[in-house]
Order: sequence, then structure tokens, then C-alpha cells
Amino acid sequence: MSNRTYLLAMAAIALFSPSALAQQDVPAKTLPVPSVEVSPEIQKVIAMPLRQGWNVLPKTGEEWKPIVEAAAAGVIKNFVPGLREQMKVKFESTTIDGVKAFIITPEKIAAGNENRVLIHMHGGCYVLSPGEAGLPEGLMMAGFGGFKVISVDYRMPPTAYFPAALDDGMTVYKNALKTTGAKNIGFIGTSAGGALVLEMGLRARQLNLPMPGAIASGTPMSDVTKVGDTFYTNELVDNVLVSRDGFCDAAAKVYANGHDMKDPLLSPVYGDMAGFPPTILTSGTRDLLLSNTVRVHRKLRQLGIEAALQVYEGQSHAQYYRDDTVPETKEAFEEIAGFFDKHLGK
Amino acid sequence: MSNRTYLLAMAAIALFSPSALAQQDVPAKTLPVPSVEVSPEIQKVIAMPLRQGWNVLPKTGEEWKPIVEAAAAGVIKNFVPGLREQMKVKFESTTIDGVKAFIITPEKIAAGNENRVLIHMHGGCYVLSPGEAGLPEGLMMAGFGGFKVISVDYRMPPTAYFPAALDDGMTVYKNALKTTGAKNIGFIGTSAGGALVLEMGLRARQLNLPMPGAIASGTPMSDVTKVGDTFYTNELVDNVLVSRDGFCDAAAKVYANGHDMKDPLLSPVYGDMAGFPPTILTSGTRDLLLSNTVRVHRKLRQLGIEAALQVYEGQSHAQYYRDDTVPETKEAFEEIAGFFDKHLGK
Repeated sequence: MSNRTYLLAMAAIALFSPSALAQQDVPAKTLPVPSVEVSPEIQKVIAMPLRQGWNVLPKTGEEWKPIVEAAAAGVIKNFVPGLREQMKVKFESTTIDGVKAFIITPEKIAAGNENRVLIHMHGGCYVLSPGEAGLPEGLMMAGFGGFKVISVDYRMPPTAYFPAALDDGMTVYKNALKTTGAKNIGFIGTSAGGALVLEMGLRARQLNLPMPGAIASGTPMSDVTKVGDTFYTNELVDNVLVSRDGFCDAAAKVYANGHDMKDPLLSPVYGDMAGFPPTILTSGTRDLLLSNTVRVHRKLRQLGIEAALQVYEGQSHAQYYRDDTVPETKEAFEEIAGFFDKHLGK
Repeated sequence: MSNRTYLLAMAAIALFSPSALAQQDVPAKTLPVPSVEVSPEIQKVIAMPLRQGWNVLPKTGEEWKPIVEAAAAGVIKNFVPGLREQMKVKFESTTIDGVKAFIITPEKIAAGNENRVLIHMHGGCYVLSPGEAGLPEGLMMAGFGGFKVISVDYRMPPTAYFPAALDDGMTVYKNALKTTGAKNIGFIGTSAGGALVLEMGLRARQLNLPMPGAIASGTPMSDVTKVGDTFYTNELVDNVLVSRDGFCDAAAKVYANGHDMKDPLLSPVYGDMAGFPPTILTSGTRDLLLSNTVRVHRKLRQLGIEAALQVYEGQSHAQYYRDDTVPETKEAFEEIAGFFDKHLGK
């Protein structure tokens, strides 16, 4: 940034900002893409422009529908088929006690994973990624980790609202418990899915169900009340979520459907996570939800629960599963797979 | 931030920034102090103004001297005596094979720590915190963790330059090995000290010395070539280091004294950390060195080394040992103590 830019920005701040003691003024800046020891592939992801439509804020499930369908169609056409092939996995749609799901099976179940299953809750701010569009993370987990994965195609607005997604996840978990020991079951999800796997842990406690053997929660929407320091520090830095007042916040409000946003079944960071199994959390230095990831990590550690945190250089929200050909993607999933392998029963 | 501020800042960017594809423009912003589930004590630390003198850049050891002495006098007078009392520890100065050091002993050595010792390398950008001014982190580690700590009062400019600090740390380590098994020795340090404990691991490998049992590296100056994404994203957000072109960079250059800044013994993130013991890393979401903390974490994990990462909400560089009465300080040191307890020999 030129010196003149800096001075102009500082002058703007001095002229117009309130002088509250506790606030900190940060001038405008220009961020280069990290380029040392960061793969060329992830550099391209980091360098992407702000997500198109980040500030389009539909207010109802019906208003979301065309946006959701267009986005899903693109993923299903342009990403899922190639990804299935590269990951060497197959999937089939099914219904589990009335809940739609996909069973993802790798060509080769990794040694030790024969009696294990992962339940995958996809991301998408509780409204996006229906059907096969919700599969990419599950496909990568199955492929990179050699796990059987059940990816839950949970109900979303405008079909159903809170707590439908959670209920559908729990239905699949309860069904899995009929054939598989809880310790052999892992939960995995990112963003809304990262919150849902935590909410499922909280709900399992409420229902006196056993805990799964391990949880992988990626950059969870753990606080939809917009509390979290990186909502501010990484505002317009994160090129995926972009802003605490962006599309994802609007979507979460639609899903909540008037329910208290601070309910731990919507903002799991406020839940009592005592008794949780080992949990691995994943984020990036530019992630708008870095705070809401590390806050969950601290909560778990305060309870003495084994909890691992991985934070990737330069990555915005959930960019670790944006592209399976990125070395950092493989690294993140192998880290999660290793964590599951260490902690799940056999 | 007012709309007008935003527009003015954006106009400044549009007028004066180069239009490189890979860069990202971030407008000026105002950061509130996080206030939910963040202690009132750490809120005060987070709300502090930018460090006085962050952009004073002495170019020689001699120029640094009066600044260093004034800062040290303040810490020794206003912080160390009360801290010693609150931590219930005592310390005495000594010389170990010609190297100045302090032996810190808690009133009560914690059960299991009787045959363990921690070697503490203080922070201060390789030029600050001589003598008792380098003690606070060591006092907290001894007090919160119940460990005997040897705090190395290593040589600094203008007395000596690279690799004097590292050499002094190694001298103390070699001496400790005469009476204590390597597995019973831990290294702890933050900032320059966080880099030094990593450099000592690299140097131990070079010298065919055994590795210590565990390392605690807090927000390490692991890359003094200024590579790291949060050098940009947290510029003027971190109220301690403030800028990659600030006082700490100037100080590191003085210590390097013309030596290649990318030498792993100055920028340990570039070193081969194979064979490193379990390592715990600590940072905060506003830390200018968050990237250089997570980069070390990833390097260790890529090698399959047990490595824990803790990142604290809202904290800038090394604020976890700014004030011992802050609950998050106790939490950070108890986490480190637990890590040492888990991994050190008895």
C-alpha cells in the first residue's frame, strides 16, 4: 500500500470514527497471496475474488430456493463426477428411517476401518448443498481416509426448519447404533456441518445416547449470534464467507426460523460439551470462523477433552475441501483420518 | 465504521493500489474488543493501544541499549517482584559454564516433577529483556506448573550477536544433560524465545545431542524473513508487534548482524525438524505471528510429530503472559504444564 493510501485511510478514520476507548481502528490494506511453502494450487484458491453473491441475503426458504438449486446444479455437474473418480469411491442414495442419505464406499476400505463408519453432515449454512451437492467432503473423507461414510442429505428450508437437520442427523446416528458400536462411529462435518456434528453430540447427551468415538468439526458455525473476534479481523479478508452480515448469516436465520440463535443446538459453543469424545477442529488463518473454531477448541480443552486444532496458512472458510488436487486438502483429510484412526474403536 | 469512511478508504485503494490479480484489498475497519466468554482481565489487555515505540527502529546494538535498559528497568521494578510473590516462587542468579542464568524454584514442586527441569529462553526480539526482565514467563511456568526452571539470561546485542543467544542456550542444555536425562528436560520460550527453543532442537540434532523430552514454543519468531500471511492480515491489528516492519524486525536484524535471515538457526520454520519431541505451540487470533506459529505446527505434523496448537480468542502476540491475574494466562500455562507432564520422563 502506498504511503498516500495509508494517510488517506487514517485521515478518514480520524475524521469519522467514534473514539470509543475499547475499539481499534485498522487502516485499509492490500493482502498479497502467501507464496512461500504454500502450494501453487492453494494459492489459486486463496487468490479467488470474494464469493459471488456474498451480500445477497434472501429472507425466506422460498427466496433461497432458486439460489440453492442453481449452486447445487453446478456442483453436481462440474465437481462431483470427477471427484468421485479421483477419490476412487462410489456412492448410492438411500433412505434411513425416512431420512435421505448417501452411502459412500471407497474402492478399498483402509485396514482397521472395516468395522467403522463415519456420519457426514454437509455444510452450506443450513440451506445450501442439497442432494449430491452435499457430497464433496464425504467423498474426500472416504477417498483420502479409506472409510465408509454415510452422508446425510438432511431436510432444509423451505421443506423444513430448525431442528430438522439435527433431527435427521440423529435419526441416522440412532440407526447406525443398531449395527455399529458407538465407539466405532465418527461424526464429520464442516461449517453448518461442523456445527451440526457438535449439536449432535449435545443432543446425544440430552437423549442419553452414547457418544460417538470421535468428532471432526471443520470451521464450525458454532456461534450464529455473530460473536467471535475474527468476524471482525477477517471481515473482507475471508473470500468465502466475507462478512458476518453476509449470505451465511442470512441462511442461518432462515433455518432458525425464529428460534433463539443462542440455543446450543444452533450455537453449540454455548453448550455443555462435558463427555464429548476426542474432537479435531480445522480452520485457516483467514477464516471468518477461526474464532468460532478456536473457541470450541478451548471449551473442549477446558473440560480436559482430547481436542486437536489444525489451522492452515492463508486459507479462508472451509477452503481445505475446495479442490481435491490441492496438497493441503490431502494433508487436512489425512490428518483427520489419522485422528479417527487413533480414536475410533476397531 | 461510517459509510463515508468506507467509501473514502475504498477510493484511496482504487486510486493508488496496483491492480495485481493475486492481491486482495481490504477496507479500513474498526475492531471491537471481544466481550463474550472472554475474561474482563484479558479484554483490558486486548484493548490496549498499539505498543509505544512500535515503529522506532534502532539499527545497532548500541542504539538499542538505552531503549532496552529503560524497558527492562520498568519490568524489573513494576512486574517481577509482585509476580514472584503471586507465583510463590523464588529465583537466584547463577552462572552455568560461563552463561548467566536464573534458577527459579516453586514453593512446591508438583508431584511427578521432582526429576524434571525446564530450560527457559526469554522473548524480546533477541535484544530486549536482559537480566531479571527476562523472568516473567519463567516465573509463571514455575508457578502455574510447579516446575524447576532454569531461565537463561543469554548474551544479546551490543554485547554479542548471532549465534550467541543460541550458543548460550545450548551451553545450559549440555550442562543440564550432565545431571538430568534428556527426556526429563523441557524447553520453553515465547517470541524470540519460541524461536530459540526450536533453534536449540535443530542445533541439538546438528551436534548429535539427544532431543529434550518436550518443547513449548509460544508464538515463535520462526520466520524473520517476514514471510507469513498474518504479517499482513493482522498488521495494525496486533497491538504488540503491530507491523512486520516494526521494532521486532529491526531488533532481529541487529541480532542477525548480517547473517542470512533464512538460516534455520534464525528462521527455524525452514529447518528439518525430523526427530523433534512433542511440541506445543501457543498463539492468538490477532497475533502477527499466528501464521508463523501454525506453519511450525504443520511442519511438525507433516513429520508425524505429536504437536499441539492452542490459539486464544482476540489475543495479540504473546499476550498470554502479559498478566498473571488473567484467567486465560493461567489456562495457557496449565495447558503447557499438562503437555510437559504428559510427555516428559519422570
